Amino acid sequence: MTLTTSKITNSDVFDRVESQVRSYSRSFPKTFGKAQNATIFDKSGKAYTDFLAGCSTLNYGHNDPDLKSALIDYISADGIAHGLDMFTEAKENFLETFERLILKPRGMDYKLQFTGPTGANAVEAAMKLARKVTGRNSIVAFTNGFHGVTLGALAATGNSGHRQGANTPLSGVVRAAYDGYFGADIDTADMLDQQLSDPSSGFDAPAAFIVETVQGEGGLNAASAEWLLKIRAIARRHGALFIVDDIQAGCGRTGSYFSFEGMGLDPDIITMAKSLSGMGLPFALTLMKPRLDIWKPAEHNGTFRGNNHAFVTAAAAIEKFWSDGKFEAEIADKSAYLGQRLDAIADAHELGRRGRGMMQGINAGTGTVADAICRSCFRSGLIIETSGAHGEIVKILSPLTIDKEQFAAGLDIVENAFEEVLGIQRAAAE
Amino acid sequence: MTLTTSKITNSDVFDRVESQVRSYSRSFPKTFGKAQNATIFDKSGKAYTDFLAGCSTLNYGHNDPDLKSALIDYISADGIAHGLDMFTEAKENFLETFERLILKPRGMDYKLQFTGPTGANAVEAAMKLARKVTGRNSIVAFTNGFHGVTLGALAATGNSGHRQGANTPLSGVVRAAYDGYFGADIDTADMLDQQLSDPSSGFDAPAAFIVETVQGEGGLNAASAEWLLKIRAIARRHGALFIVDDIQAGCGRTGSYFSFEGMGLDPDIITMAKSLSGMGLPFALTLMKPRLDIWKPAEHNGTFRGNNHAFVTAAAAIEKFWSDGKFEAEIADKSAYLGQRLDAIADAHELGRRGRGMMQGINAGTGTVADAICRSCFRSGLIIETSGAHGEIVKILSPLTIDKEQFAAGLDIVENAFEEVLGIQRAAAE
Amino acid sequence: MTLTTSKITNSDVFDRVESQVRSYSRSFPKTFGKAQNATIFDKSGKAYTDFLAGCSTLNYGHNDPDLKSALIDYISADGIAHGLDMFTEAKENFLETFERLILKPRGMDYKLQFTGPTGANAVEAAMKLARKVTGRNSIVAFTNGFHGVTLGALAATGNSGHRQGANTPLSGVVRAAYDGYFGADIDTADMLDQQLSDPSSGFDAPAAFIVETVQGEGGLNAASAEWLLKIRAIARRHGALFIVDDIQAGCGRTGSYFSFEGMGLDPDIITMAKSLSGMGLPFALTLMKPRLDIWKPAEHNGTFRGNNHAFVTAAAAIEKFWSDGKFEAEIADKSAYLGQRLDAIADAHELGRRGRGMMQGINAGTGTVADAICRSCFRSGLIIETSGAHGEIVKILSPLTIDKEQFAAGLDIVENAFEEVLGIQRAAAE
Amino acid sequence: MTLTTSKITNSDVFDRVESQVRSYSRSFPKTFGKAQNATIFDKSGKAYTDFLAGCSTLNYGHNDPDLKSALIDYISADGIAHGLDMFTEAKENFLETFERLILKPRGMDYKLQFTGPTGANAVEAAMKLARKVTGRNSIVAFTNGFHGVTLGALAATGNSGHRQGANTPLSGVVRAAYDGYFGADIDTADMLDQQLSDPSSGFDAPAAFIVETVQGEGGLNAASAEWLLKIRAIARRHGALFIVDDIQAGCGRTGSYFSFEGMGLDPDIITMAKSLSGMGLPFALTLMKPRLDIWKPAEHNGTFRGNNHAFVTAAAAIEKFWSDGKFEAEIADKSAYLGQRLDAIADAHELGRRGRGMMQGINAGTGTVADAICRSCFRSGLIIETSGAHGEIVKILSPLTIDKEQFAAGLDIVENAFEEVLGIQRAAAE
Repeated sequence: MTLTTSKITNSDVFDRVESQVRSYSRSFPKTFGKAQNATIFDKSGKAYTDFLAGCSTLNYGHNDPDLKSALIDYISADGIAHGLDMFTEAKENFLETFERLILKPRGMDYKLQFTGPTGANAVEAAMKLARKVTGRNSIVAFTNGFHGVTLGALAATGNSGHRQGANTPLSGVVRAAYDGYFGADIDTADMLDQQLSDPSSGFDAPAAFIVETVQGEGGLNAASAEWLLKIRAIARRHGALFIVDDIQAGCGRTGSYFSFEGMGLDPDIITMAKSLSGMGLPFALTLMKPRLDIWKPAEHNGTFRGNNHAFVTAAAAIEKFWSDGKFEAEIADKSAYLGQRLDAIADAHELGRRGRGMMQGINAGTGTVADAICRSCFRSGLIIETSGAHGEIVKILSPLTIDKEQFAAGLDIVENAFEEVLGIQRAAAE
Repeated sequence: MTLTTSKITNSDVFDRVESQVRSYSRSFPKTFGKAQNATIFDKSGKAYTDFLAGCSTLNYGHNDPDLKSALIDYISADGIAHGLDMFTEAKENFLETFERLILKPRGMDYKLQFTGPTGANAVEAAMKLARKVTGRNSIVAFTNGFHGVTLGALAATGNSGHRQGANTPLSGVVRAAYDGYFGADIDTADMLDQQLSDPSSGFDAPAAFIVETVQGEGGLNAASAEWLLKIRAIARRHGALFIVDDIQAGCGRTGSYFSFEGMGLDPDIITMAKSLSGMGLPFALTLMKPRLDIWKPAEHNGTFRGNNHAFVTAAAAIEKFWSDGKFEAEIADKSAYLGQRLDAIADAHELGRRGRGMMQGINAGTGTVADAICRSCFRSGLIIETSGAHGEIVKILSPLTIDKEQFAAGLDIVENAFEEVLGIQRAAAE
Repeated sequence: MTLTTSKITNSDVFDRVESQVRSYSRSFPKTFGKAQNATIFDKSGKAYTDFLAGCSTLNYGHNDPDLKSALIDYISADGIAHGLDMFTEAKENFLETFERLILKPRGMDYKLQFTGPTGANAVEAAMKLARKVTGRNSIVAFTNGFHGVTLGALAATGNSGHRQGANTPLSGVVRAAYDGYFGADIDTADMLDQQLSDPSSGFDAPAAFIVETVQGEGGLNAASAEWLLKIRAIARRHGALFIVDDIQAGCGRTGSYFSFEGMGLDPDIITMAKSLSGMGLPFALTLMKPRLDIWKPAEHNGTFRGNNHAFVTAAAAIEKFWSDGKFEAEIADKSAYLGQRLDAIADAHELGRRGRGMMQGINAGTGTVADAICRSCFRSGLIIETSGAHGEIVKILSPLTIDKEQFAAGLDIVENAFEEVLGIQRAAAE
Repeated sequence: MTLTTSKITNSDVFDRVESQVRSYSRSFPKTFGKAQNATIFDKSGKAYTDFLAGCSTLNYGHNDPDLKSALIDYISADGIAHGLDMFTEAKENFLETFERLILKPRGMDYKLQFTGPTGANAVEAAMKLARKVTGRNSIVAFTNGFHGVTLGALAATGNSGHRQGANTPLSGVVRAAYDGYFGADIDTADMLDQQLSDPSSGFDAPAAFIVETVQGEGGLNAASAEWLLKIRAIARRHGALFIVDDIQAGCGRTGSYFSFEGMGLDPDIITMAKSLSGMGLPFALTLMKPRLDIWKPAEHNGTFRGNNHAFVTAAAAIEKFWSDGKFEAEIADKSAYLGQRLDAIADAHELGRRGRGMMQGINAGTGTVADAICRSCFRSGLIIETSGAHGEIVKILSPLTIDKEQFAAGLDIVENAFEEVLGIQRAAAE
């Protein structure tokens, strides 16, 4: 297909044929064609800076030239695209690369399960495995968590809009309060420990806890290392596995490959997806401690467990970005810069900054205001979205590889949008 | 990555790092690299004929040159790989193509939902929607059906190995007997009608029926048009939606684009995946009658709803294979030939042929025998697998595009393997 | 309270204060006061013959003089009425009597669990125990079965009106077809065996089967001994416990104390209630083979597990009616007479007789007709109700102790009502 | 049956025939026979004071002479014992009495549903009705709550021993923290409000809250009126019904007929059982606001909905104890005395008093200590039990009608037992 010269001259086909369930196309009602790193072009050729990055799926930007070239070479050479879960050279190379550059340097010992290529599927596999290993049913998930929308994963997801979509009761999950959920003075980990220690609390002995270190959809709530270590210890004390869902916060988004590095957290199971392929291709992984790998062959299966194109780009991404510490240093710089810029905006409007690393935002107070800010940004050529229970957080999720000038310019747009929207609001209030 | 020259010289990495859940790599313990149409090459360069075709994911063969070239062009031009579910030119082109060449010529009026790119996800969306539309909970699935392994879809799947993997009770689905399940003399559709018509049968009014026209995993059981029409009428009479899961049987596998063409079946919802992308890329669709499209925006969402690479190859595949009737005619020829060859094998050993179209096999009597036959084939350079409740069916799922000579040679291998394995068995019995 | 002289002179209080959920008072809109054996008197002193007998709760009639006297003596002597599940002399005497006159003579070895005093509670306990013993979740219940309306038992009940009352999905039960459900030519036991033997049928390995030998609410369907033995063997073969719910059919209703005597059936668990107390007092039992008694103390508890008044009347009833074979002979005589009378009615109207023992009825064809017949009977002084999926069965459930003349006169009323109602219908049709 | 002269001379029959599930007979391993008010006699004639009172089922003592005589009169006159849910004079009289002496004087307007005669059944009916009225599934129950052990009610019960007995996952209930659960400084009502107000908290919009004003099994935790009013308001704000489970705390136990009188609480649904019949007979009620009475006839049914013996004693109890304020004044006096005595014991050992009204106890620190105290009391002729998550509360639940001298003497035994057990403990520690 030749981009921008398609037979279609208008997008009526979307209205005519695509289901009403579509969402992002409502916020960004343009038809896009090409994209390079942090820039997306619509059909007319207009360029937009991407501060959404596929909700953290494009940490290395759009169409990284090295990944692109690795993939084109692979396809050109008739490399296997689909082989169910058979051994392929692409898989072999990915496994070797992941072991050599990700696991070993971090002293991590995990087996890799290629689940169906979605984060939800990785979560479903993790939940099944935790139930199988422990012989227990209940899984503890946290307020404002997001873990996917297939029925098993959806039970762990907090968002009521998605939950109601099930149209059937969701079961097997109990809810605990995330770090800081009840304010700074209440230690929610202690609360959970009390409930699990109390034999008549009504909280059944859990198979696992599943937690995000930073809640990407839930409002950029970042748990402290102290809290995470504490709930990890509580899980262990109560015989529950500790699952870190690193689908949105992993792959460098918070500064390191895994979002929990340096915390001594040692999860039993880790789920990954989104930026794992490096290029936005569907790909997911469930990592588990070797002792937990008690799966029977094919017990959890699926057609697209081996997305070989994704193996190729994922291995190339790891080689390019994680062979040494340069990329981490670059993220650290950008994260610091982002923090400063957001602090300035927040201070100017008496608002609060949220999140950590390159996964930060500002609580605009209400969803209406945050939405108005994002729409204003889009008019200025910036693709950006909200997050949080009420959509009240303006969320910055640019590619980690974004050029500094473009990053600064994008943040200028954000700053101006806050000024514009809140200025109008202030004017209206006077 | 350069194929066959990877740094890895052995596959210890699989044992060391990949989970025990892997399955097909156990039947075919080689590391594969390249593949073209019906031929797969292992690392050493040895060629195998592929009679598995990704379980019907590679109906157009491996790396079709036109699809490959369309995809390489798209990537080279920095076409968007990942854009969540935003409008893209690739999606626009796919929608337009699907509407023009698939829906309109067949007089079909459906909306398309891009679910997460797995069949299970398309099924989960279909089940959610059926419950939402009807306000009912129970979904009727059939004996020996396979619909995926995420928790919602898994409830509809019959296979006990997969079901037990849940390690939590599966609910929301009631089971009915497939066409012919209790033998030729018992009309299972009448049974289901009786149960649903009886207010104290214990069968709750269902939200939907979900059925495969040919049960790919369940043993190549092919339902008759009469039975399908009858249960479709029963569904309607009892206020239930009628869902055809065309994930394995669709995309030409049984002879036409949809497996139910020519039957006047008119499903309310259709699920598609596997060969939909044309090249083995993860991609899934839930088609629904426009009146059923009552989704709220993002009610069912997911990161990889828009696999733009798959849009490109899927549109190219439709243009190439479904613009006129040539491909259908070719499938018809090959299906007839396959039927003759299998009849000859079956007759020689007093066995039965199963399935229809290019989705046929032979009931080898036991899983042990069928497995021995498939292993013998693999030693002769043929990749082939079993199906059925006991793995007793030797299943032929070659690419539809397979060269006739290669097809014949592959079937020779199958014929010889039956002769070899059943000959040994007969000798042992004497 | 002095009967028939209450301060209330009308029954407005029912409309004003009692919930709409009430049911039998709608069919028999009188206020009743006294009752002796098969006769009930309304407030005005009008006598009615009772062919409903508390749905088989009054097998020994209303206020049997010996049971009455035992109870009055007990109360007068300050016998403990309520002692939770502590040891009492009344319980001791009941246990000793039940062991001596019921279990031992029949060569039966069971432990007795006093559950909460309702049939539903006995069923809930049976289902919990079966799941505990087997470690499995799924319980097989049958079409048209009735087992109670608390959430666990309700899942096993077939009636849709009751099921919908849950307003939440019912789970943990799969449904199989009762004896003869699909007509005389289809062996539903073979069907169940096939489904359970097929590892991809979607029927999970069950914890238990729960079955009534005669379905009292479901339409007086009486299973054959052959069928019961066959499904008992199927249960054993598949590792499932075999539960007979003898709540309605037990305590002599079908001719023997247990409804399955003489069949060699040997259930793992038996549930009892209704006529167990002999006098209509709330009382229930779950009997289990001693090897199954792996309950932990209080694992299933409840305030009214020891209804000591019921212990007293139950022991007295067993002494009076089951010390020798006289009562069984009497039931046999009456059952034969009932069969003859019903055959005559059925033959006269080309209808079918249903059930066995003193649990028989006639299929009046439709619920409307059966209801008209019962309403006609009531106008003639007979209390009688319908049964069956559509309420199409006119059900005779008189006390087993009914006087023969009264029984004959009651059956005359039934006969005349059939003639009247069907005569009108025939006239209307001409 | 003639008490104390039964044919049985030992209790081997219990070991031989009664299930291991029995519980209270383990704490009080005697066989009891007669009982009058607060005194129980064992077979040998030894008298025990009853500080358990059937877990609050015997608020009016054992065999109250007026209730006894009303019941004997009724039985002697052939009053209907069992009539399903037909209108009877006994029911009419009960309804009239309950309306006249309980509802009207308190300005309460409720419809009465006679559910199966157990508290669990009343709770099951309440949960079903709440789901039916709201169309929602989730019910909020509280830490340490006890609501019964049938599957629906059990989901709301906190005790893990009972929950595990289900051997199947319990669903449809979410858990909130009871008043004071996290200490005096944390307002658990605010927490619940926050969770329900947060659309991504994972707490689905609930059908109802179900709460005990004092948790009888959960450790005599007494909620404050402020907290109860607050959660009642929260329920209303979030569209949930407010159910007070008054099964243990009602019928005068806390000082007034309903445990929540004087608080302005106005529940939507109230469940009652235990002391409702006045004499320990099985009997339960679900009270609902008239606008909620949307039940269809028989939608929730059961054989023993109309326990006419219980109607008789319940009406007599209401007439005797609730016609004027004398009984309430008497309870108030005894409650004050009980509080003083317990304060003295608690102060002496630096322990805490729990509960309110005639439903108080002392936290002995551990279950082991509390159990030793109760066993010591029993040796001294006092029947008394523990409560709480760890059985750490020594619970005083004497009949409300207990003679003051006997009450004092019983409390002396308790006081001495604390001294004995804690004295030994102190000695051992030195």
